[in-house]
Amino acid sequence: MKTFDFTLADKLIDLALLEDIGSGDITTQCVIDNEKKGSAVIKAKEPFVLCGTDVAKRVFLRVDPEISIVKSFEDGSKLNKGDVILKAFGSMASLLKAERTALNFLQRLSGISTNTSKYVEKLKNYPDVRLCDTRKTTPGLRVFEKYAVFTGGASNHRTGLYDGVLIKDNHIQAAGSISKAVLSVRKKVSHLVKIEVEVENLNEVKEALEVGADVIMLDNMNNDQIRESCQIINKKALVEVSGNVTLERLEELALTGADIISCGALIHQAVSVDLSMSLEAV
Amino acid sequence: MKTFDFTLADKLIDLALLEDIGSGDITTQCVIDNEKKGSAVIKAKEPFVLCGTDVAKRVFLRVDPEISIVKSFEDGSKLNKGDVILKAFGSMASLLKAERTALNFLQRLSGISTNTSKYVEKLKNYPDVRLCDTRKTTPGLRVFEKYAVFTGGASNHRTGLYDGVLIKDNHIQAAGSISKAVLSVRKKVSHLVKIEVEVENLNEVKEALEVGADVIMLDNMNNDQIRESCQIINKKALVEVSGNVTLERLEELALTGADIISCGALIHQAVSVDLSMSLEAV
Amino acid sequence: MKTFDFTLADKLIDLALLEDIGSGDITTQCVIDNEKKGSAVIKAKEPFVLCGTDVAKRVFLRVDPEISIVKSFEDGSKLNKGDVILKAFGSMASLLKAERTALNFLQRLSGISTNTSKYVEKLKNYPDVRLCDTRKTTPGLRVFEKYAVFTGGASNHRTGLYDGVLIKDNHIQAAGSISKAVLSVRKKVSHLVKIEVEVENLNEVKEALEVGADVIMLDNMNNDQIRESCQIINKKALVEVSGNVTLERLEELALTGADIISCGALIHQAVSVDLSMSLEAV
Amino acid sequence: MKTFDFTLADKLIDLALLEDIGSGDITTQCVIDNEKKGSAVIKAKEPFVLCGTDVAKRVFLRVDPEISIVKSFEDGSKLNKGDVILKAFGSMASLLKAERTALNFLQRLSGISTNTSKYVEKLKNYPDVRLCDTRKTTPGLRVFEKYAVFTGGASNHRTGLYDGVLIKDNHIQAAGSISKAVLSVRKKVSHLVKIEVEVENLNEVKEALEVGADVIMLDNMNNDQIRESCQIINKKALVEVSGNVTLERLEELALTGADIISCGALIHQAVSVDLSMSLEAV
Amino acid sequence: MKTFDFTLADKLIDLALLEDIGSGDITTQCVIDNEKKGSAVIKAKEPFVLCGTDVAKRVFLRVDPEISIVKSFEDGSKLNKGDVILKAFGSMASLLKAERTALNFLQRLSGISTNTSKYVEKLKNYPDVRLCDTRKTTPGLRVFEKYAVFTGGASNHRTGLYDGVLIKDNHIQAAGSISKAVLSVRKKVSHLVKIEVEVENLNEVKEALEVGADVIMLDNMNNDQIRESCQIINKKALVEVSGNVTLERLEELALTGADIISCGALIHQAVSVDLSMSLEAV
Amino acid sequence: MKTFDFTLADKLIDLALLEDIGSGDITTQCVIDNEKKGSAVIKAKEPFVLCGTDVAKRVFLRVDPEISIVKSFEDGSKLNKGDVILKAFGSMASLLKAERTALNFLQRLSGISTNTSKYVEKLKNYPDVRLCDTRKTTPGLRVFEKYAVFTGGASNHRTGLYDGVLIKDNHIQAAGSISKAVLSVRKKVSHLVKIEVEVENLNEVKEALEVGADVIMLDNMNNDQIRESCQIINKKALVEVSGNVTLERLEELALTGADIISCGALIHQAVSVDLSMSLEAV
Repeated sequence: MKTFDFTLADKLIDLALLEDIGSGDITTQCVIDNEKKGSAVIKAKEPFVLCGTDVAKRVFLRVDPEISIVKSFEDGSKLNKGDVILKAFGSMASLLKAERTALNFLQRLSGISTNTSKYVEKLKNYPDVRLCDTRKTTPGLRVFEKYAVFTGGASNHRTGLYDGVLIKDNHIQAAGSISKAVLSVRKKVSHLVKIEVEVENLNEVKEALEVGADVIMLDNMNNDQIRESCQIINKKALVEVSGNVTLERLEELALTGADIISCGALIHQAVSVDLSMSLEAV
Repeated sequence: MKTFDFTLADKLIDLALLEDIGSGDITTQCVIDNEKKGSAVIKAKEPFVLCGTDVAKRVFLRVDPEISIVKSFEDGSKLNKGDVILKAFGSMASLLKAERTALNFLQRLSGISTNTSKYVEKLKNYPDVRLCDTRKTTPGLRVFEKYAVFTGGASNHRTGLYDGVLIKDNHIQAAGSISKAVLSVRKKVSHLVKIEVEVENLNEVKEALEVGADVIMLDNMNNDQIRESCQIINKKALVEVSGNVTLERLEELALTGADIISCGALIHQAVSVDLSMSLEAV
Repeated sequence: MKTFDFTLADKLIDLALLEDIGSGDITTQCVIDNEKKGSAVIKAKEPFVLCGTDVAKRVFLRVDPEISIVKSFEDGSKLNKGDVILKAFGSMASLLKAERTALNFLQRLSGISTNTSKYVEKLKNYPDVRLCDTRKTTPGLRVFEKYAVFTGGASNHRTGLYDGVLIKDNHIQAAGSISKAVLSVRKKVSHLVKIEVEVENLNEVKEALEVGADVIMLDNMNNDQIRESCQIINKKALVEVSGNVTLERLEELALTGADIISCGALIHQAVSVDLSMSLEAV
Repeated sequence: MKTFDFTLADKLIDLALLEDIGSGDITTQCVIDNEKKGSAVIKAKEPFVLCGTDVAKRVFLRVDPEISIVKSFEDGSKLNKGDVILKAFGSMASLLKAERTALNFLQRLSGISTNTSKYVEKLKNYPDVRLCDTRKTTPGLRVFEKYAVFTGGASNHRTGLYDGVLIKDNHIQAAGSISKAVLSVRKKVSHLVKIEVEVENLNEVKEALEVGADVIMLDNMNNDQIRESCQIINKKALVEVSGNVTLERLEELALTGADIISCGALIHQAVSVDLSMSLEAV
Repeated sequence: MKTFDFTLADKLIDLALLEDIGSGDITTQCVIDNEKKGSAVIKAKEPFVLCGTDVAKRVFLRVDPEISIVKSFEDGSKLNKGDVILKAFGSMASLLKAERTALNFLQRLSGISTNTSKYVEKLKNYPDVRLCDTRKTTPGLRVFEKYAVFTGGASNHRTGLYDGVLIKDNHIQAAGSISKAVLSVRKKVSHLVKIEVEVENLNEVKEALEVGADVIMLDNMNNDQIRESCQIINKKALVEVSGNVTLERLEELALTGADIISCGALIHQAVSVDLSMSLEAV
Repeated sequence: MKTFDFTLADKLIDLALLEDIGSGDITTQCVIDNEKKGSAVIKAKEPFVLCGTDVAKRVFLRVDPEISIVKSFEDGSKLNKGDVILKAFGSMASLLKAERTALNFLQRLSGISTNTSKYVEKLKNYPDVRLCDTRKTTPGLRVFEKYAVFTGGASNHRTGLYDGVLIKDNHIQAAGSISKAVLSVRKKVSHLVKIEVEVENLNEVKEALEVGADVIMLDNMNNDQIRESCQIINKKALVEVSGNVTLERLEELALTGADIISCGALIHQAVSVDLSMSLEAV
């Protein structure tokens, strides 16, 4: 179990409702009285790993706080075609207005958790290797998409530029060297934030290690380079490999000795799952 | 050429920057002076149909209005690996803060236009058949994703619940019949909005036709049913087919006589393209 | 019956409360305890067509969700002087804070529906002629004011620039000709949006008709020109007349054969009705 | 001269643009390139007292900061039919998108200043009598509409519940008496805010006077009652008359000895003036 | 008793929660289920004058409307170490997320009321002298901090630039003279707003008095100058002294004859009080 | 040097301007033309450590982007009475509207950096001991106040609940034990975030150490307990002491062997410095 917060994420939900409903649902306005009640059922139309039920619930409630929701499955559940995900009851007009936005969240987030679960499956024999996402997410959906990666069984990298230090070549260049960059940053940031350095060759690996980087990111290295780097680092820092991480290459990367494999594809190569809502007057 | 407006879309850009930068880019804050200038180049790392250059530009400018941007290609261009998409010049700190958000928009929107272009290609011999998207979009990105579909060569369905009438089974049920629903809606909505009715069988086709629906959506029909419906409708209304529209099935659908094929997969089955930004101090 | 949505409109309600209450109701703060309960009655002080009860209700509830409201009449009712419109019960301080904003909505919207009803009355013998509003509305009140026009018995034109195409002279000039403009637009917009062309003479009427405009707007034509245009168009497109539409001229316009008369005066020449709220401690 | 601030008012301008442009100006998007330049001229189509030029200018600039504006008249000018109000130059697409919102502000605000000027004219021989507005304004437009009243030659009452104390019957009832209410309020509010008490009969006039109210509002009194009240008050407090204030009754009210006449009709009985924008490519 | 409004102030509460919770409370997310209930007690850890209980309550409710709150003391109470301020019950995760923001409001506002009460104590023998705050407040907290000053026993000056006129040297210079400035302002502002003039010497005192300023602010004058000014003014205007107002100097200022002493230090020299929240699972 | 970002912080600046200017600066509106130019100088009126110049600059620019600013000192400078901090040139009305908000930021942030510098001075002989702030900040000002602490020479703890893990007693209780809590969190959070555990006795110290906490916070321990804890921990985790940290106690805490001393008083016991702006017409 891991929960998430709506403090920031509600802003996206409200924006999504604004873009879909906008000045009004002109079809529903003309034929459905606000008092009319309905009962909605959201079902899976193919097998997938469920994610986003609380987001969908939030969508319904922000459209109309009087809607009541009953979830049939928790996020992370492996659904079969036909499984009922949740039921909603309330004003039929409200249900119709929330429908598409709620489904769009569910289909995208479940798509990510389902995609992630395939990568996770590939690493099932490597429990010590941590697979994690990157900041290559859909703009506005960061909190939700990272939650979907976790739901699919993988881990999260930093959320944004504010909750983790990743020193890249431009930072190194501006500071003068890896050492100078790391020392400058360590002096200035909170002691609760780790410092990661992105390196491209063995010399940089050594310099990062020496100056005490908490995490060393091996960027776009081949397996041999990674292995050699891991030997040099020798567990004195966490080793993250990044770049060109595909489903196919996962297992060989796991064998290199790296601690962490970061993979933007968990999110940006995910496609939506198929689900639908049916609604009946009551 | 078709442009788009930032009136609504700026809200997503600002939200995306808030979720990525938040309380601050702690790495850059520690090593890069705000005065330091840099020059950034965004390049394609694989072939794709470009989309989102003005969105990326807007991202940079909202982070820092002093950044100057030069685009090398217009949206819709077919890029090869290595092609320079745009160059940006300005405060290096600002470029670093905008980088990921700008790229995330570009990779997602180009992914959609690239995916769409494959579907469009399949229909190249059917110039009278209009391929269009649906409301199955990523929450918050509606305006941008629909623009990407257009950039990829396809057309747009209604943007939201406010700019087109689509009468579905729940509306029909609430109104009493297709005829009652259409008449009620026509009386109440703007004369600039067309009325589309979703039907499931030939009887409904006939009823919708008779009451003067502008567009009749054949939902989840097989090819024979579609053909028969088209013959009944006989160009007196636009015919849209929807449901189970796959790349494989496109051509056979085009042969049925339908005017419009709507396909959520243009957007929700798209994955991001690969591109990157390199940045140098100047 | 036709309902409306608060998705966009809530933003205006909140802004209206901010501009009236701002940093605080300094009178009430000094003498009325938040716990004190009161009962408010809103009454008509002259005869009018009621509009805005759900808006007024929303105002009260956004100030204080604990307030309970009972409406005595539905929007569209013809009220007499002294009729009770609604009763509200709850914290007296909250009722006082919401009072003016709630009344200001009611008086303006009822003013529009009352004004509209006079125009509608003039056309009662012409059931096939549709009288509609324009975009000449009070900034920020678009959704509400258009709803008031409908409540008063008339119809709505497009809501904004996003839910209907109206090709004007600048668009024609930029495209090169009416035909080029219409063809370009038709290719690019959703198939659920109709295309209207504003024309100024018979040649333009013919060109618009030929290229298949859905609606032809005759701008500032005299009755003879309108009649002649209608004959040319011959029901192959909807005919809208616009410009210089006054209460006096309505009937003669109805006799020209036009389908639609658009009239900004429904809204921008409306004045507020007289109503008041009385409040008692309980 | 009196200026106004956009700090609060910008929120309404942005909302007005959102409601009009929303997801996009679909007509302009299809036929006008963002680069194309145009020149717009806004003209009066009837005589009126101009108000809102800076608001209109702000609208254009918020749509597109590159637009340049030249005003021909200052607010408060008496225009004749055909007078050019302002010229705008810039992207034609931007000018088209801003047009309606800019005009809607101008027509409403000039309507109010024109209406107000008629009331002011009636009082031209009574320079010591102050005519002012009330809080009966269009929701969201408070700052602008009060500015229009001033532009039309009248004065402003308090802006909202936060910048002036007006003790009404409910406050009196809650406090126990006029005296208790005034004393309680005076002790608690800023010494920069005056205290006004609404009274309904001579006894209340006396009590308010005795406890030192700064302003005494005679609510719905007839001329004799007003005269008698003024004699009792004898310039020891400002006297405001309110309720049933019509254009016809103004002069007789001015003769009663009251200092201030407050009149909601300045705003809520105003109708828009007629003006238009013409736009040419350049 | 004096209450306050959340219309404007809610914006700060929401911002405070966004800055503290942001993308999520990562500690709580990992170990505490949203369903788990808890009971929280906020206690004083030193003696102080309590202020902010309704603000703290609002913070809890905006995080989670299901939380129930019981206050033990009203604002203005003098607390001893160990006194229970309020108890909250609800989702433990919600209580943890709201805790710091609620406490930060309480500690700051109680700090101000406690600090203010010391100044008030110094003036207890001068009931006719009004001690008030200034606009030197913490940005964003104006409404709350002024409420805390009132809670501590002092009075409030104007809230912002919108609810009181204070003519300073720049205004005088721009207008040409004190008289011109006062006359210009009086003509243009609401009759419910008093006019205060800041003066620096006796000549200015006389000019302000003559032109009928409601309040005359003696800026940075010594006691003799103040006394002389008070004699000149002779109760025909309120006299406010300002500048260099310290706790030590209060009593001598009270003896000068001034009506009002304004003192920014009530707020900007206040420090937080010590309080804490303990939380238990239930 | 360390910079900060306005992405989140601009929201507070805008709110601060809204609360101060609101519906308008009624004094300036009446006597100062928007075109009139002025020149402003902000000076120190006592010695202090400067902080907030870029915030003040931002305030001026958000009121009016045409204002030009020249800073005389960088943040962190030790100013003497009379030192010019910055000069601003532009519309006099704009300068007056921004003045108070700009000064309020400067006085508060400089107050914090000045207060912090006193604490830092006490630790000047203990370069290895890191003094840092807490989350006990003024609501809404987190980013700015933490920046002021850094400017004053101390360090920053986590910014909010999102960028560092701090496991407190409630988390431990919910998880079952320190070990369970740490293991659960480590598995779920980003590998870039360190895990801190708050402990109250030596047993807890040992358990936290054993399970591999990155930082161990000794809460409210006396010096002997701290020393003993440091010996047990023996540099295998960072040691933070917290609670009852006063200026007086700093040095003895530095001698205990702790790595980090966190002290809310840096911020919540800071008072504003004295500075002022003078403005002249030009």
